[in-house]
Amino acid sequence: MTRARWTSETTPLPPHALAWLSRRVGLGEPFAEVPLTAPESALSADAFTALEAVCTVSADAQDRLARTGGLSYLDLLRHRGHGTPAVPDAVVQPASPDEVVEVLKICVEHDVAVVPYGGGTSVVGGVEALRGTKSAVVALDLAGLGSLVSVDPVSRVAVLQAGVTGPEAERLLGEHGFTLGHVPQSFERATIGGFAATRSAGQASSGYGRFEDMVESVRVATPVGEWVVGTAPASAAGPDLKQLVLGSEGLFGVITEVSVRVRPKPYGPRYEGFVVDGWEAGVDLVRTLAQDGVPADVTRLSDVDETEVALELAGAKAANVKRYLRLRGIKQPCLVILGWECRSRSATMSALSGKKVVRLGRAMGAAWVHGRFNGPRQRDALLDAGVCVETLETATHWSRVSELRDEVRSALARELGDPVIMCHISHAYETGASLYFTVLVPRDLEDPVGQWERAKVAASDAISRLGTITHHHAVGRDHQPWLEHEIGSIGLDVLRAVKAQLDPTGILNPGKLL
Amino acid sequence: MTRARWTSETTPLPPHALAWLSRRVGLGEPFAEVPLTAPESALSADAFTALEAVCTVSADAQDRLARTGGLSYLDLLRHRGHGTPAVPDAVVQPASPDEVVEVLKICVEHDVAVVPYGGGTSVVGGVEALRGTKSAVVALDLAGLGSLVSVDPVSRVAVLQAGVTGPEAERLLGEHGFTLGHVPQSFERATIGGFAATRSAGQASSGYGRFEDMVESVRVATPVGEWVVGTAPASAAGPDLKQLVLGSEGLFGVITEVSVRVRPKPYGPRYEGFVVDGWEAGVDLVRTLAQDGVPADVTRLSDVDETEVALELAGAKAANVKRYLRLRGIKQPCLVILGWECRSRSATMSALSGKKVVRLGRAMGAAWVHGRFNGPRQRDALLDAGVCVETLETATHWSRVSELRDEVRSALARELGDPVIMCHISHAYETGASLYFTVLVPRDLEDPVGQWERAKVAASDAISRLGTITHHHAVGRDHQPWLEHEIGSIGLDVLRAVKAQLDPTGILNPGKLL
Repeated sequence: MTRARWTSETTPLPPHALAWLSRRVGLGEPFAEVPLTAPESALSADAFTALEAVCTVSADAQDRLARTGGLSYLDLLRHRGHGTPAVPDAVVQPASPDEVVEVLKICVEHDVAVVPYGGGTSVVGGVEALRGTKSAVVALDLAGLGSLVSVDPVSRVAVLQAGVTGPEAERLLGEHGFTLGHVPQSFERATIGGFAATRSAGQASSGYGRFEDMVESVRVATPVGEWVVGTAPASAAGPDLKQLVLGSEGLFGVITEVSVRVRPKPYGPRYEGFVVDGWEAGVDLVRTLAQDGVPADVTRLSDVDETEVALELAGAKAANVKRYLRLRGIKQPCLVILGWECRSRSATMSALSGKKVVRLGRAMGAAWVHGRFNGPRQRDALLDAGVCVETLETATHWSRVSELRDEVRSALARELGDPVIMCHISHAYETGASLYFTVLVPRDLEDPVGQWERAKVAASDAISRLGTITHHHAVGRDHQPWLEHEIGSIGLDVLRAVKAQLDPTGILNPGKLL
Repeated sequence: MTRARWTSETTPLPPHALAWLSRRVGLGEPFAEVPLTAPESALSADAFTALEAVCTVSADAQDRLARTGGLSYLDLLRHRGHGTPAVPDAVVQPASPDEVVEVLKICVEHDVAVVPYGGGTSVVGGVEALRGTKSAVVALDLAGLGSLVSVDPVSRVAVLQAGVTGPEAERLLGEHGFTLGHVPQSFERATIGGFAATRSAGQASSGYGRFEDMVESVRVATPVGEWVVGTAPASAAGPDLKQLVLGSEGLFGVITEVSVRVRPKPYGPRYEGFVVDGWEAGVDLVRTLAQDGVPADVTRLSDVDETEVALELAGAKAANVKRYLRLRGIKQPCLVILGWECRSRSATMSALSGKKVVRLGRAMGAAWVHGRFNGPRQRDALLDAGVCVETLETATHWSRVSELRDEVRSALARELGDPVIMCHISHAYETGASLYFTVLVPRDLEDPVGQWERAKVAASDAISRLGTITHHHAVGRDHQPWLEHEIGSIGLDVLRAVKAQLDPTGILNPGKLL
C-alpha cells in the first residue's frame, strides 16, 4: 500500500543556486538523512483483526514509516536524527465512506487513536501520529477514497472523495470540461479531504476563492455516526455548520466526500510578470486590484529581497532584466505575477494603465508557473547543503500589512542573526492580504531544533499581535500556542464542546488544534 | 423608549390594486385589529432593581407591547385576535456592549429569559417573547447600541454597533464615502445585529454578497463572558467560529458589534427592467450571468404570475407595455430587474447581447426601486381587505430550481384552493439561486391560523425535500420542524452542545432555532 514520501521526489539545486546560497546565506555542514526505524506496533491483535474484517490494514514497518510525520522543517530534522518521529502502529486503508464509519467504531471500541492521512503534506505537525492517552494509534490513509462521485453540469457542482489528490481532481473533472482551480503549493500530493480539513488556499485564490469558498457540502464520518452538512448554495437555517467541519483538522470526524463548485476549464490561461518600484507601491497596486474587483486569478507580489533572489536564480537572463529595470528607473524592484484563468485580463490590465508598472511579459509568468511546486521539493537539497529553511504565513488587513511584515522580519533577524527573509503576498482580499515568508539561514550545528523553535516563537508572537496565526497552513501542533490569543478561551471551549459531542472518547487526531 | 411597530407605517392599497384583488383573489371579510393588552409583568422586583442599576428598564405596558412579536402573518393574526401574543415582562435597553454583558449576568442570576430585539422584523417568530422554563422574559432592545465605532478606510472595514438600522448604517458610512450595500426588504427597520444573527441577504446580494460575506468579526456578549471572534480577512486557524455566531439567532449570545467590509458609495446606481419569454429562459439567463461572473448587483427574475401582477399594479402604463411585448413576440413575459451599483454594467450587457431579451428601460427599474420596501407595509392593508398574505423562501441548486418551484406551487394549490402564487429569484449564485414565493388567498373566516399553518407545512415539506428550509428568513420558531432534516440529528446535537457551553442555564431566546 506504500505511497512515496514527498522528500523522495526531491529536486537538486542547480549550480548557480548553490553558488548564490554559498555567497549570501553560507553553506553549513552536509546533513544526511538517518534511516528511520519503526518501533514494534502497539496495536492489539484484537483491534488488528477487527479492522482487517472491514478493510486493508498493515502493520508493516515500511507502510508505517511512509506515513510518519509531515513536511515541516522539524519533520525533516526528525528524519535526520534530531527528535523522534511518531510512527503509527498501523495503517488502515478503507475503500468507502461506510468503511471509514466502521473503522471509527472499531477504534472507539478498542480505544485506538486515529490520525486521518491524505497526502501527508502538513507543515504544522497536523499528521503526526500522536496517540494521546490511547494505547495505540493508526494512520487512516484515505487513498482508497479516490473517486469522482458525481457531476451536476448545470449547477456546476461535483462530488469528490476525500482521497483524490490535486492533479487527480483536475484530471477527473477535466473529463467533464471542468476545473476546481485549487492549486496550493502542495497540489501534487495533497488531497481534497486535506484541503477541506485545513481551509487550504490555492495560488489562484484571488480568482477561484479559498477552498472553503468552493465547498457546497461535506460528508463526515464521526464516532457518533455519519453527518452530511450543507444543502444549498446559501442558507439561513441556523449557523453554517459546514464551516465548523472545514478547518477541523480531523478532530471532529473524518471527511469522506466533499461537494464542490467547479468552473469551466480555462481556455488558454495566461501568466505574466511585472515589476513595481518598492514594496509599498506593490501593496497599493495589489490592494487596488482587489478592492476594484479586478484582481487576476493569480495575484502575487514579492518584496525586494524575494525579487532579488528570484532574479538571481533565473540565472543568465537576470542581468538583462536588471539592466532593463534600471533603464526604466526602477530602484527597488518588486516582482508581481498576474495569472488569468477564469477572470478578465482586460479588466485587470485597464486598472494597471497609468500606474508605474514595468511589464516583463509572459516568459517571467511561464518561469513562475514552471517553478510553482519546486519549493517543497528543494527543501531536502537545502538541508543537504546545511541550510535551515522554513516558511511562515499569515493574513491581515491592508492597513497592517507593512507593519506586520516589518515586525516579523525584525523578530527573525533578532533570533537568527543575518537570515535571508523573503516575503510575498499571494492572496489578495478586499479587506486585506496574506503574507508568506521564506527564511534561509545556516543551520545551527549543535541545536538545529532549538534554533528554529526560538525563531518560530518570536515570529509567531509578532504575527499573532497583528494578524492571524495561520492563513492557510492550519494549526496542527505547531500553531497551538497562539490559538487562544486568536479565538479566545471561549473559542477554545466551544471547540472542546463540539469535540466532546462528536468524538466523546477522544480517538480523533489527539494533540492537534486544541 | 417606544419605537413604533412596523404595521403602524402601513401603506394603503391604491384603488386599482383593490380592484385587481377583488377580481383575481376575492376580497374577504374586513378584519380589524384588536387592541392588545399586556398581562401583568412577571419580572421580580429584585431582578428589575438589579437591571435598573445597569441600564434603562421599563415594565410599561406600551413599551412591552411595542416589542411583542414580529411581522409574520401569524404575528399579524395575533394582533387581530387569533392566538395569544407573547408579551415580554420588561424591556431592557443597554447603551454599550459592557452593559449587555452585565444584563446577561443579572438575568442568569435571576433566571430570567432574554430575547434580543433589534428591528422586530422577524417573519419566523424569531423575536417572540417566549420564557421557556424561566420565570420571566425580557426583551433586550439594542436601540441604545447605535454607533459607528470605527472606520479603516484603507482596509475598507468599519465597526458598527448591533442596534444600527439599515438606513442609519448607510448614513453613518456615507459620511466617510462608504456603503454597506445590504438592503433586504426589512432594511428600513432591521438592524446590523439582526442581519448577523439571521444570515440576512439583501436585494443587491448578487453584487455585495450576503451579510455573512461582509462580516470580518463579531463581538458577542454571552452568559460566560464576552467573545470577539474573527481577526483577519481569511484564516486557517481552525474552524471559522464567526460562522457559528452568524445565524445563531440570539441563542449563543447577544451580538453587540460587527466589523464589516464596506465599499465606496456607488456613483450613479442604475436599475433597468427587461423581459424574457418564459420562466425557463429567465432561469437560464440569470444562471448564465451568475456563472459567467457578470451578474448585476441586483439580479431578479419574476415568473409569469408575478410579472402579470407587477404589470397590473403598474396601472395605466401596463397596457402599453403588454402591447409592446406582444409586438416583440413575447408570449410568456417574465420580468427581469437588473441593478448596478458596484459591478460593471457593460459586462452584464455584453452577456445579454444575442439573447432574446426585451429592454423596458430605466422607468421599470425605477418603479422597482420605488416599491422595493412596500411588501411588508401593505400587509396590514391586505388583511384589512380580508386577504391572507404570506411569503415563503428557499434556495437550491440550478438543476432543481424549476422542480422546486413546481412542487411548492402544487403543495400550496392543494391546501389553499386557488391562491395567487407569485415567485421570483432574487439571489443568484454560481451553483444555484433563491426562490421567493408570495401567496394571496381569501382568508378562511373560521380558522385563519389553521388555514395558513396547513399551507406552510405542505409548502415547507416540498421545500425541504429539494432545497434549504430558509435562504434568508432564518429558522425562528416557524422553521424548526424542518431543521433536523436539513442539518441532521448530529447537527442539532452540535448546536445544543455549543448552546450548553455558552449559555449553560439556557436564558437566551428560548424556543427558537432548536
